[in-house]
Formats: sequence, C-alpha cells, structure tokens
Amino acid sequence: MERSIFSNISPLDHRYSLSEAGVFNGLVPWISEDASISACVKAEIALVEAHLESRGQLTAELGAALKKAGESVSPGEVYAEEEKTRHNIRALVNVLKTKVPAEAAPLIHLGATSVDILDTSLAYRMQNSAKLVVTPLLKKLALLLCDIAEREADTPQVGRTHGQHAVPITVGFTFAGFLSRIGKSILQIQVFADDLRGKLSGAVGAYNATCMITDDPEKLEELFLNKLGLKPSEHSTQLVEPEHVLRLLLEYNVCFGIIAHLADDLRNLQRSEIGELHEEFSHSQVGSSTMPQKRNPWNSEHVKSLWKAFMPRATSFFMDQISEHQRDLSNSASQRFIADYIAGFCMAAERMSGVLQNLVVDKENLTRNLRGGGGIKGGVMAEPAYILLAESGESRAHEIIRKITLACEKENIDFAEGLIREKEIFIKIQNKMTELKLIKTGETAKDFFNNPERYNGLSAKKAKTLAAKYRRIMAQ
Amino acid sequence: MERSIFSNISPLDHRYSLSEAGVFNGLVPWISEDASISACVKAEIALVEAHLESRGQLTAELGAALKKAGESVSPGEVYAEEEKTRHNIRALVNVLKTKVPAEAAPLIHLGATSVDILDTSLAYRMQNSAKLVVTPLLKKLALLLCDIAEREADTPQVGRTHGQHAVPITVGFTFAGFLSRIGKSILQIQVFADDLRGKLSGAVGAYNATCMITDDPEKLEELFLNKLGLKPSEHSTQLVEPEHVLRLLLEYNVCFGIIAHLADDLRNLQRSEIGELHEEFSHSQVGSSTMPQKRNPWNSEHVKSLWKAFMPRATSFFMDQISEHQRDLSNSASQRFIADYIAGFCMAAERMSGVLQNLVVDKENLTRNLRGGGGIKGGVMAEPAYILLAESGESRAHEIIRKITLACEKENIDFAEGLIREKEIFIKIQNKMTELKLIKTGETAKDFFNNPERYNGLSAKKAKTLAAKYRRIMAQ
Amino acid sequence: MERSIFSNISPLDHRYSLSEAGVFNGLVPWISEDASISACVKAEIALVEAHLESRGQLTAELGAALKKAGESVSPGEVYAEEEKTRHNIRALVNVLKTKVPAEAAPLIHLGATSVDILDTSLAYRMQNSAKLVVTPLLKKLALLLCDIAEREADTPQVGRTHGQHAVPITVGFTFAGFLSRIGKSILQIQVFADDLRGKLSGAVGAYNATCMITDDPEKLEELFLNKLGLKPSEHSTQLVEPEHVLRLLLEYNVCFGIIAHLADDLRNLQRSEIGELHEEFSHSQVGSSTMPQKRNPWNSEHVKSLWKAFMPRATSFFMDQISEHQRDLSNSASQRFIADYIAGFCMAAERMSGVLQNLVVDKENLTRNLRGGGGIKGGVMAEPAYILLAESGESRAHEIIRKITLACEKENIDFAEGLIREKEIFIKIQNKMTELKLIKTGETAKDFFNNPERYNGLSAKKAKTLAAKYRRIMAQ
Amino acid sequence: MERSIFSNISPLDHRYSLSEAGVFNGLVPWISEDASISACVKAEIALVEAHLESRGQLTAELGAALKKAGESVSPGEVYAEEEKTRHNIRALVNVLKTKVPAEAAPLIHLGATSVDILDTSLAYRMQNSAKLVVTPLLKKLALLLCDIAEREADTPQVGRTHGQHAVPITVGFTFAGFLSRIGKSILQIQVFADDLRGKLSGAVGAYNATCMITDDPEKLEELFLNKLGLKPSEHSTQLVEPEHVLRLLLEYNVCFGIIAHLADDLRNLQRSEIGELHEEFSHSQVGSSTMPQKRNPWNSEHVKSLWKAFMPRATSFFMDQISEHQRDLSNSASQRFIADYIAGFCMAAERMSGVLQNLVVDKENLTRNLRGGGGIKGGVMAEPAYILLAESGESRAHEIIRKITLACEKENIDFAEGLIREKEIFIKIQNKMTELKLIKTGETAKDFFNNPERYNGLSAKKAKTLAAKYRRIMAQ
Repeated sequence: MERSIFSNISPLDHRYSLSEAGVFNGLVPWISEDASISACVKAEIALVEAHLESRGQLTAELGAALKKAGESVSPGEVYAEEEKTRHNIRALVNVLKTKVPAEAAPLIHLGATSVDILDTSLAYRMQNSAKLVVTPLLKKLALLLCDIAEREADTPQVGRTHGQHAVPITVGFTFAGFLSRIGKSILQIQVFADDLRGKLSGAVGAYNATCMITDDPEKLEELFLNKLGLKPSEHSTQLVEPEHVLRLLLEYNVCFGIIAHLADDLRNLQRSEIGELHEEFSHSQVGSSTMPQKRNPWNSEHVKSLWKAFMPRATSFFMDQISEHQRDLSNSASQRFIADYIAGFCMAAERMSGVLQNLVVDKENLTRNLRGGGGIKGGVMAEPAYILLAESGESRAHEIIRKITLACEKENIDFAEGLIREKEIFIKIQNKMTELKLIKTGETAKDFFNNPERYNGLSAKKAKTLAAKYRRIMAQ
Repeated sequence: MERSIFSNISPLDHRYSLSEAGVFNGLVPWISEDASISACVKAEIALVEAHLESRGQLTAELGAALKKAGESVSPGEVYAEEEKTRHNIRALVNVLKTKVPAEAAPLIHLGATSVDILDTSLAYRMQNSAKLVVTPLLKKLALLLCDIAEREADTPQVGRTHGQHAVPITVGFTFAGFLSRIGKSILQIQVFADDLRGKLSGAVGAYNATCMITDDPEKLEELFLNKLGLKPSEHSTQLVEPEHVLRLLLEYNVCFGIIAHLADDLRNLQRSEIGELHEEFSHSQVGSSTMPQKRNPWNSEHVKSLWKAFMPRATSFFMDQISEHQRDLSNSASQRFIADYIAGFCMAAERMSGVLQNLVVDKENLTRNLRGGGGIKGGVMAEPAYILLAESGESRAHEIIRKITLACEKENIDFAEGLIREKEIFIKIQNKMTELKLIKTGETAKDFFNNPERYNGLSAKKAKTLAAKYRRIMAQ
Repeated sequence: MERSIFSNISPLDHRYSLSEAGVFNGLVPWISEDASISACVKAEIALVEAHLESRGQLTAELGAALKKAGESVSPGEVYAEEEKTRHNIRALVNVLKTKVPAEAAPLIHLGATSVDILDTSLAYRMQNSAKLVVTPLLKKLALLLCDIAEREADTPQVGRTHGQHAVPITVGFTFAGFLSRIGKSILQIQVFADDLRGKLSGAVGAYNATCMITDDPEKLEELFLNKLGLKPSEHSTQLVEPEHVLRLLLEYNVCFGIIAHLADDLRNLQRSEIGELHEEFSHSQVGSSTMPQKRNPWNSEHVKSLWKAFMPRATSFFMDQISEHQRDLSNSASQRFIADYIAGFCMAAERMSGVLQNLVVDKENLTRNLRGGGGIKGGVMAEPAYILLAESGESRAHEIIRKITLACEKENIDFAEGLIREKEIFIKIQNKMTELKLIKTGETAKDFFNNPERYNGLSAKKAKTLAAKYRRIMAQ
Repeated sequence: MERSIFSNISPLDHRYSLSEAGVFNGLVPWISEDASISACVKAEIALVEAHLESRGQLTAELGAALKKAGESVSPGEVYAEEEKTRHNIRALVNVLKTKVPAEAAPLIHLGATSVDILDTSLAYRMQNSAKLVVTPLLKKLALLLCDIAEREADTPQVGRTHGQHAVPITVGFTFAGFLSRIGKSILQIQVFADDLRGKLSGAVGAYNATCMITDDPEKLEELFLNKLGLKPSEHSTQLVEPEHVLRLLLEYNVCFGIIAHLADDLRNLQRSEIGELHEEFSHSQVGSSTMPQKRNPWNSEHVKSLWKAFMPRATSFFMDQISEHQRDLSNSASQRFIADYIAGFCMAAERMSGVLQNLVVDKENLTRNLRGGGGIKGGVMAEPAYILLAESGESRAHEIIRKITLACEKENIDFAEGLIREKEIFIKIQNKMTELKLIKTGETAKDFFNNPERYNGLSAKKAKTLAAKYRRIMAQ
C-alpha cells in the first residue's frame, strides 16, 4: 500500500523522513510497522523452533523451511487477514500457518499468548535499535565532542553564570562537560538495553498453557528467548515487567536533555552580541525570507524544539506502567508511539552531530567577550583578587573587592586598573601570588590581572583528560 | 514521492491510517504536509490579492490567474527548491514566482516575513479543521450520547462510588453526565476556534516592512486576513500571540479527558463480574489468541490508551508559549506535532462513537448488580433509611442505620429485611414516608425498600432534559 | 498545633512564606487547611439555613446562632474527631452538631453527601481566591506593564529573532506584547472564575436523598448555593463536573506561561553582552559568594524556575478529570495540591511585579546594540533596503541586498555604507522613498539608513494604544 | 518562627504531616529547611577542616570547636542575615564567621562558590535520605509483599486480562509480581544513591579559585567530599552534573508507578462485585457521611491519588537538566520542590505498607469468582482445552473451542459441561492429558476441567521462589 509521503500526518513520516533520511532509513527496519510485523514473525518462528528443538525434531531442513516461510510474510496479507479476525496476532498466525511445512503448523503459537510474541518482539526491536542505531549515533556525537574538547582545550572563553560573565574557562572545557554527561548516558543506555526481557509465560504469566505441553516451561521459555538474544522476565503477567523498557526510555530522555542543553548553549553563544560560535552557513542559504542579513542558529533551535516535542512524552511511559491485574489493553496504542519517540530522539542527536561537525569557533569574539564585553570590564578577575586577599589573612576580602568593582563600574575603568591603584591591597595580593608561585620569576601580578585568560584553573587539563577517556570508551 | 505505508514510523501513518481511514482522510486536507504547503500557497496568493486590491489593480482575470498558479504548486517542487535555499518559505516563494503573471511576481511575499504566512496559514488550518472535522466528529458523539441518555433514561443501574455500590441511578443518567460535559466542551471549542488569529505585521510584529509600502499597514493586514476568514492578532511579534492556538488545543485536551473518562467507565462496566454493558462483538472476531472464551472491551481500552499517549503532550503546548524576544525557532518542530495530536484526538473520538453506536445494555446484569451483587445485599437502601429516620427527628440516625448494616452483613441478610425487623425504627420511617407522600396509597414502606430501583431521585428526569437540550444545541 | 516553619517540608511553607509574605498571607484565608475547614463549615451552615428557609423556619436569631456556631469551630477539634471517624466531613458534622441550637442539629448535613460540601466549598474558595487574590495580583502586574509600555513607547530597541538582530522596535512595544497577552488572560480568568459550580445532588448526583426531603430538590440546591455565590453543576455525579475548576487552572497555567516568557526575555536582556535592562540591585546586596562583581537577574530566574516547578502539574489536573463511575477517591489527595499550584503561580506573578517596579532601562546599551552590537553593523536596515528595492520593481531585490550584506561583513563596514556606495541601487531606493513620502523634504535616504531607530514601524503607536486600552480594562 | 500547621498551604505540611507523622518526622532531618541549612553548615565546616587538614593544621581541639560552631547555627539567624545580603550562602557564611575560632574564620567558604556548598549538601541529603528513610520504607513494603506472596502462594484466584476472566493464578503469584518489580527498583535506587556526587570546583567548575590556593585542587575536593561520604562530579560547571540526582529521582518515580499499579489493582479487587480483598475497616470508622453501608478502599485510592499528584513532576526534573552555560538560576526554586516529591513518594509507600499489613483475603469470593463470576461459567478452562486439543494434532483447535464457548454462553451452561458432551473432542483431550501425565492414575479429565484452580501453572512455585529470593536480598 503506497501513499505520497506528503499525505502523511506525522512530520516524522513526511518532512523529517527527508531531512533526516539517514536516520529514518536506519530506523525503519526496527520501528516501522513493517518492522513490528516481521519481528513478530521472527518470534513466532523462534517459538516453533524451540518446540521442535525441545522435542528433538528440529532438522536443518525444517529450520530452513521455517526461515523461508517467515521471510515470505508481507504486512499487507496480515492486515487483510486482520480485517476478519480483528486480532492482529491471530491474523499473523493464520497467515503463517499457510506457509510453514504441515508438521510445523500445529506448533505455531502453541502455548503462547499474543503478548508473549508482542512483548518479546518489542524487546528484540528495542534492543537491536539501541545497539545498532541509537548507540552508534550517540557515539558519533560523543566523538565529535571529543574532537572539539581536544582541539579547543586551550581556547579562552569567559565562563558565564546567570548570563553574566563569571570567571574564565576554555572552549574545550565547555564541550568536555557535555561529553562527560553524554558519555555516561551512553554507558547507562547500554546497561539498560542489555537488560531487556522477553517472555513465554502465557496469558497471565503463570505458564498455565506451557505446563500442558512440557515438564519445564521455564526451560522452553529460555530456549525460545535465546534465539532472539533475550532473557526471560523474572516474573510476568500477560506482560513483561514494564520497567525494563521504561528505564531504557527514561535514559534516552536523560540523554535527550543533555543534547537539548547543548543546543540551548549553542543558540545563545550565537547571539548577535556574543558570536563566539557559529553554525556553518552555506553561501546560497537564506536566513530570513525578509531580512537578508540574518544567520540563524536554526539547527540548534531545531534540536531544542524536538526536545520540547518529545521530552514530555516520558509521562506516557510512566502511565504505561499501570495495566490492571494481569493486563488491560490501555498500554497498547500508547506503546506504539515509542517508535515516534525513538525517531525524534535519534533525529535530534544526528542533527546535533551535524552542527558540531561544522561548528565555527570565533576566537576574536571569544577574546573580546572575555576581556570585557559587558558589565565591569575585566570583572572576571575580581574573584582571584578576593581569594588571594583572603588568603593573605584579610577577612573582609570579599567586601573590599566588591567595593572596588563598584568604583570601577562608576568610573568605567578596567577592574585590573582599579585594583592596581589600591596599592596596599595590591601588594598583599602580589606577595601572596609570589609565595604561592602563581607568577613566574620576572612577572608581576599585573601580568596576571591584565591577562584574564590565565585565570582558567584546570580547564585545559580537564578538557584533554576527558576527551582522551571517552575516546577510549567510545572505541570499545 | 510514494512510500509503502508500512515503512512509516508513526502509527498514525500506518496502522491507524487504515483502522480509522475515515478520520485520517478527513484530516489529510488540513494537517498533512500537503495541507501545510497548500495553505501557505493560499496565504501567499491572498497577500498578492490584498496588495493588488489596495492598489485598485485586482482584476477578475488576474484573480483567476493567481488562483490557478496557486493550485499548480506541488509539494515536491517546493521541497526540491528548499534543498537549495534551506528555507521553506523562501523556497515556496521562488516556486510561486515562476507561476504567476509577471506583474504579480514582485508582489509575492511583499512586506511579509515567513511567519506571517506560516502562522496565518496555521490558524487557517486549525480553524477549518476545528469546524469541518473535529466539531462534526464530536457532535456525532454527543448525539449518540443523547440517544442512549434518552433510550435508557429509566433503565435502573446501581450508582458506584469508590467502586462500591452507593445508591441507584439509571443508565441514561450516567450517559447524560458525559453528554453534559462533552456538550459544553464542544461549545467552548467553537468559541476558541472562532478566535484564532493571523498576522501581517512582519519580522518583529511592528509592521516595519509594510510601513514602507502603505500608509495603513493594519488595514492591509485586515484585507489579507479576511480573505482567509481570520482576524489579526492584537499584538504580534514575529509570531501571532500563542495563546489563541494554545487555548483551542487545551480545550481539545479537556474534551479528550471526558472521552477517556467515558472509556474507563465502559471498560469497568464490561468486567466479567459486572457485565452491565458490552461492546459489540462480531461472530468471527477473536478475543484472545489463546483464550477462546474472551470478549475484551478493546475499543474502550484503545481510546484510553490514545489518551495516555496524547494527553501529556499538552506540556509541549505550554512550553511553546515561550519563544525568546520577538521569536526563536524552538517552537517550530514542536508545533508541527500539533498535527499528530489532532489526529490522535479525532481518532479517539471516532472510536468512541463506534463503541456507542453498537453498545449492548444488559438489563439482567444491571438488575442483579443493583439488587445485591456485592457487599451488603440491598445495602443501597441504607441511605434513604438514614435520611428518613433523621427527618423523623432522630439525630443518631446515621449511627443506628450503620449498625443495622453491620448486623445484616454478619447474618448475610438483605438490608430491607434487617431494617423491617427493627419495628420501632421502621415505623418512624414509614410514617415519615407517608407524611412526605413518598409512597402511594395502598403501598407500605416495604414496597419501597424492596425495590431499590425506586430510589433513583431525578435520574430519569435529568437524563431526558439533558438529552433534549443538547440535541437541540447540536442541531445548530 | 504550632510548628517551627523551618521544620516544614514544602518551600511554600518555609522559605517562600517569608520571602513572599504578602502573597502567602493573602492566600492563607483561601487555600490553607484552616481555610478548607472553615469553608466546609460555611457550606454546612448554608445548608442548614437553606433547609430552614425552605421550611419557613429561618429566624434572624437562629441565623445568628448558626453563624456563631460556625465561627467557633477550630481545625484542631475537627482533626481530633477525625481520629475516631477516620472521615473528615463526618468529623466536622459531629463537631458542628455540638455547637448549633438543638432544633438545627438534625438538619446539619441533611440530604448532603460529603462531596456536596467539599466540592461546593472548593468552588467557593477557588472563586474567591480568584477574585480577591489572583486577579488583583495580575492586574497590578498588567498596570506595571502599561506604565512601561507607555513610558518607553519611543525608546529604540533592536528586535531579535533567533537571538539575532532583526529590525528595530521600541522597548514599549516589547512590553505591550506581554501586556496584551496577560490582559486577555485576566479576562479569561474572570470568565472561568464566574463559571465555577457547586452541588447538592447527593451521593451519586441524582438527588436521591433530597428527593426524600423536598418536592423540588433542584430548588433547594439553588437556595443553598446562592448563599455562597455559586450556581449548580448542570449534571453532577458525586462530583461537580470537573471541567469548571480545570478550565480555570489551565488558564492560570496559560497566564503563568506568559509571565515565564517575560522572565526569560528579561533574563536574556540582562546578559553581560546585552545589558539593555537591569533588575534593581541594592547597595548591600551580594551577587555571588565568590565573584564580587556579579549582578545576577535572580528575580527573573526565580520566576522562570517557579514555572518549571509548577507548569507540568497541569498534567495532574487533566488526570483528575477521570474518576471512575460516580466517583472514586483517586482525585482527593491530588486535588489538595491545587493549593500549592495557586501559591506558586501567585508568588511568581508578584515577584515579576517586583522586577517591573524597579526595572532599569539602559538607553546607552540599547542604542549600542541597535547600531551594531553583533553580526553586520547596521544590518537591521537590510530589510527596508530589500523592500524598497522590490517596490521599485526589482524582482531580484532580496538576492541583491543579501550580497551587499555579505560584502559588508567581509569588509567589516556598516550596511548603510555598503548600500550607499551601490549608487544605481541606492538611487532606486531613494526615489521610491521620495515617492512614498518616507523621507521629509530636505532629507535624503541616507538620513533614514543612518538612523535605524527610524525604521520601527508602528512600535510606538501600538505601545501607546495597548497601554491605554488595558489601563481602561484593568480599572473596571 | 512558629506557625499553626493549619495555616500552612501545602497538604504535606498540614494534613499529611499528621496522618503520616512517622514519615514526616523521619524526613524532616533531611528535607526540611532546617535540614537544608544544617547540611550547608556541615559542608562549610567540612571545607574548613579540609583546608586545615591539607595544611597540616587540623587539631582535635580545633575540630571540636568547629563542630560546636556548626551546631550552634540556627536557621532563624541565617534568615535574618539574608535580609541584608539577599544571598543565602553569603548570609550563612557571615553567621558562621562569628562562631568559629578566629584562626579558622578566613578559611570559611575559601575557594568555594555557593553552589559548591549547595549542590554538595543536596547530594549529601539525597544520599542520606535515600539510605536512611526511603530505602527502609521500601524494604518494609517489600517484606510485606514477601509475607503475602508466601502465605497466599496456593490461594486460588482468577487471572484477569482486559478486566475479563482469563485463566487461574494464585493470590501469592499476583503479589510476587509486585515484589519482583519493587525489589529490583530498590536495588536500582541503591545504585543511584551510591553514585551521587558533590563538588568543590568553584564558580564555573574549572577550579579557578582553588588553583589560587593549592597545587592540587582535585585532591582538596576529594578531601572535602570524603568527609561527607561523597565523590566528586567527573566534570562540573557551577553545578554538579545534574544526571546523578535526576536518575535517582526517576527511579523513585519508577518505583512510585509500581506502587500505584498495586494500589489500582487493590482498588479494583475491592469492588462490590469482586470483593476478593479488603482493606481493614475499624468498627467505629465511617465509610460515607450519607451511605452507612459503605466500605471504601480509601487507602489504596489515596496512594493512587498521590501518584497522580507527584508522577508528572518528573517533567520538572527533566527541565532542570538545562541550565544555561555554566549555570543559570532557573533550576533553583524548582529544585527545592524535590523535597515535596520525596515526601509524597514516601507517604504513598508507607500508606501502602499499612494497607498490606492488614489486608483481608476473602477466599469465598475468590472461589466464587474463579468458578464463574462472569462471562461464561468456567470459561477459564477454555484455554487448556484448546492447547490440549492442538497438542493432539488438531490444527483448528482454537476455532473448535471458541464455538463451544459460544454454545455454552447461549445455553448458559458451564464450559466443562459443554466440553464434556462433545465426546470425540473430549476423548482426544483426555488421551493427551494421560499421555502427558497431567492427570494422576484414577483421575479423569473431568476432575481437571471441573476444578479450574488446578490449572494454575507455576503460580505457587513462582510465588514462593520470589518471596524467598527477595526476603534474602532485603535482609542485606
């Protein structure tokens, strides 16, 4: 059944399936309707094989026939059958029965309830999409962060709190922070993806049906699930314990939040007045339909917007924990939209990689801002003055320096200038610096206070260490 | 660009586009990507017409040529152009310029910023989808509720609070409650849909550009918007004030909540132990792939599940109120998913109509439950006993009757029986009933207490009154 | 029962009850536990009066005695009684019975179910808090916006989209936008507050009990509710239709979003690099415990943070629409937290008023930014150049001007300079301006392009018109 | 500063501080305002000690004096000082300086920014409340689930899907499911609580200030944090990486969802028509103010309602991941409400323990429901009939049995009866059962089909195994 993509309703299936074609196509084998059905078929075939194997009847020939039967099922014929049964798995079973060797037919779906197949195949698709699509996209992003952290480890930048200049850092240090957070999230995603579970415990989870078939239904369940790379739910009702999938989705949302934070910072660092970073802008690109001078950080804005669209859906995930008694169906439709969520998340991650790949670092603006783009010029050096003065034994240090900043502001002079003219205070500070070896021989404290980029703590070291660490981890 | 629907990611564009084909097809002209683009074209043409009209140059011939040009734009060519411009509206403008008469070309998009077109066409699509798709679906649902409220106005049912039997009502009364709530929501939707706004105030909302073109840019704006049936935003930035669309979406979510409540109640009234109502179940339908006896209330469950998937998205709507300064783009991607929301809501409404159309009312079970399906048999008559006893001047009435219920429970007898044997008390009650004309001549209080369905207050009257009222309103 | 406020858990009851003492104290009479209980007592007394009145037995003396009895109830004694009954309303009824004149005692709570009292008194408290606390706070905020819109109607500011300089506006225009949105929200709040409903329809909403007492239970309900300034729910179960309260809360959340948007913009306009606005900063105030130069926009940040804490609670409000059958109790605890929500919202509104009251407008920085704080110097004039060129018949106008901006950027010259040197183009523009009377006699186009603040469209006019309009409305 | 608790606004600080006094009082030392301040003091003292220790100046005497100084700080005096500074940590520092020995005064807060103290003390409070309050409450709940799972391991119950009778399980199996889920959540909570982090990296996380003081600022940080049982954040800005606290909160919300699910199931199993379980109901307790017979599952309802109030707050937690650049303050107020969340969660857990402690299991109703409370009598045995028939080689087994259920429904007879009379089919089934040793010698298939409780799979085994496993884990 073909349809113009422009007649689709979800932006994922029209606009974003084109603009993020790579991600879209990578996900289709795992989270489209095609994928749902073919994973169910795969699970049904695995079940038949498990039955045969436990009976010692699984021949290579039969295995091949089953595989071929599975591959021959098309979504269209399942949907056609469902119009009769109004039950999707029964429809699939009916179709499959016509395709497998006669001796295997009675074993199809034997002992299983629909959800044994549905929840197992969901876990299978979630696990594989996590390992084969989501994690690689995130690792790519992490490696790009490694690159920038390393390359710009020593590039001076003003640190900002409350949107105000605080004290200096480096561009690499900034990116290392996002790297550290995303890196840990990738590791947590792997843990949760590895812990996804399937089931073959029947209609209410108590193995009622399979107890009619085998002495050891838990062994049959394991046999079945192993074929799909999964382990059994410790206890199930009609459903696998919902927390396995839930925790993975929540960690996706955690990771999404980190990426959205990065997007927000990039947006702001591209403001007209700041201009420290720029998204690449192609020569023929139009910034605004009416303002020809515009260069908008639209990719970062897009990532933030996707987060706004998808982050709140975690509430649906939490709501789906509750399914009355051994199960009601009120998690069925809602759960289908996990597919949308994963797509939205992956598209945001990929878009962010695109931004990082071509990110322009404007060293001129970085320096201009650090040296006094706003508030008190050179005010970022008020902190070391206060610290060193306090260290020299002056307990009113904070107040003394605060007053100097007020004076500098009033007279519109650089903080270093205002500090240096307070001779008594400045000498105390200089002595302390000498004592602590914060200035080299031949230097004076002026060399320090006139060069705010020197007051950047461990910025460069942290940037390099973290880049090296996560580059190693991502390579695994 | 064609694609198999089974390769789509969103369930809206594969599974539900088939199972709710009517709703899907009804919405495509308003909320698909095709619809977005053609509404933008419509707005661009309206703008050219407004320019021409305000210059006294709009001839019938030119109008026809413009209309034809607009209709000839295909999404595919706009997307092809966007690959160059990386700006969707500039792409559309470029395409359109090649299609209109030469004298109109310079007027295309003149004075407008992209969002003048985007926000205006969004309002246009939201208003029309509200009036032509959403409201009709909801009215259909309301009328089905009218039918049931009226038809079952006198059918006895036990009222339940905390899942416990409380006092009697009627089936019609139950449905009248949902009718009253949905009815008012439809009226509120109409108010908010009528109040959607467009704009032609330019890049930051101050009519900077149109002041270069005309003496009265607000008049030009009105001329433009009237062609699309809209009024201008009282104040705009680059965006129309976001609250107009927001309030409509929130009222959709309010209405969705009422429908979800109805779904929840229907689910519960179909429980094996209750069985008062049933969704129709076709003869060939399969309830469970493994339990042949099952009759699941799956449509009601489906509606509830859609609510779980879509209700929390209101958080995204609230987040989209914030767009920095005169606008950032972080509401752009998120806003596109309004389409998904509307589709989910409409599909839930329509599914609910399907349930109501074929709802089976089981009078046998209704009577069985009312007369004592659980707790104390006939316990629903404890309240009138307490009220009448209190009315007769007994201030410990509640406590006296509560003790009788405990005795009935212990001895497992009907409450009426337990009450009647307390002669002194019962006579007080009977006298009060006679005085208040609650029993007719020839009857005794026993006739009342043995027939709990008589203690149903204004149930029938309310059911009929509300059905009549909303039938009238829905006809308008 | 006294407790140190520092032993409270909710920030509302410790920190913010001090920092926003005015709002806190204003709300205590409506949304504290004291308030809940005294409103329930008020409703119970109103019910007794309604009974007496409908029986023609309400004397002035009895009325006074009832009033006095109501006022003498303390929360402590109700809680003590609840330990026995484990039912809050039954406890209150027991306490009240010991206080009213003997002839009134049997009428207490007669015909009512607990929720008749609870939901009615909730509506009463919601209505009064809306009218007496929330709306006045919002009107105060709106009037402060009127002041700024008017005062700064002509103060030039650069308009920003995507964080990039777009085209000029005025400070007053910016604030007028928030005014227009908040103004309409106040009006909508009034509509929804006026539409709150109570009930006296008993345990399941069908007037079962009151039918035992009176011929016209709907008339008794009206009599009762009128005493509290309320109208009856059109249909009730045990509960008033939940949408009345829901819509009011949602509109609060809508208004909260507008205030949060304002807070966000103020935060950003106080960035070190921008500095167009400043929160007042007292002389002894400390910006940072370690950076003496800091001036943080912490009040605006606080407002945004409260929004983050409270906005998502709308999801709980939507969840409370669903209460199974005629009611389950699962909306009871959750509904109590409406009090927290209202407090959080009011505190944010009041804090924002505080910010506006002392807002410092930095005209120097405003001018600096408008004239070229970032990107292409004077780039905000690219739009009128494009428009006028297009108007003069040049269909490639957008592209021509875009190329000039690229050249200016490369050579780091002002856009006006770059434009003027393109003589042919500039003459076309100048001619068009003359034709359109956009420049006065004696002026040249240079006077316009060198003074970007002249390109501000209707900014000043809109600011003044809207300030006048809402000043009038707020006075009502 | 004392206040009547009934003048508080949050239900946590009035109503629930009484009804859940144990939980409230247990939490006050960790999440009240008192607790916030005293933990900050503890952190400030730890910092002074770390400075002294790294300088080899920390004597036992000085240590004792510092401890004493810390303990003597009262919230009241800090708040009084804050009125001057308008900065909470600077206020605390000022107060502390007046209390410590003179030689320690200059070391107070040295090298720290406010958030070093705030974020570290938050981690400290979160970790301790997790270990000392939250986890013990959850373990208590888990052990109560162990008790029921074990005690009722063999008590027959009908399994339900879609609210419909499915196939038999046991009561113990039901509870074992919740046990397994909560047990794993407790383990995950412990992992995340152990991974909370503090910081001493200064204003922007780059150790700028401490580099002025020591050669190895990361070592100083470790020294400081170890005193509070914490490790450093791998990378910090002004803030600790937000994901450490976030993941713990999300796992709380996961656990909350499991408890809410349990509450929902308990509510439904107490419905009048079902009556399988009952909350204990004291003799003097009043179910309804007007319906004396009522026994409401109000504790379970209360738990569900708390979940509705608190679960959606996870959205705020996600929003707090984003703090611009090295930090904005917009996570400050919102983060304070974590206290409310933890309180709400703990109160729900404790209330649920109360329900389980006194849960009444009604074996009579359990049997009645299992044997045919609704739908087709004995219909729960349709599944084994279908399975066994399929096993015997009949590929149309599902359809054959489904038709028998339809016939039974029509004639209103027990499924076993309807099956047995289909001799040919029944014999096939019986033969299969004999072959598979599902019936003992001397028994016939009738003994099986007439005793549905025998068809319960591994219910009892799973219940016992899981109870034993988690009893062991909880003991650790």
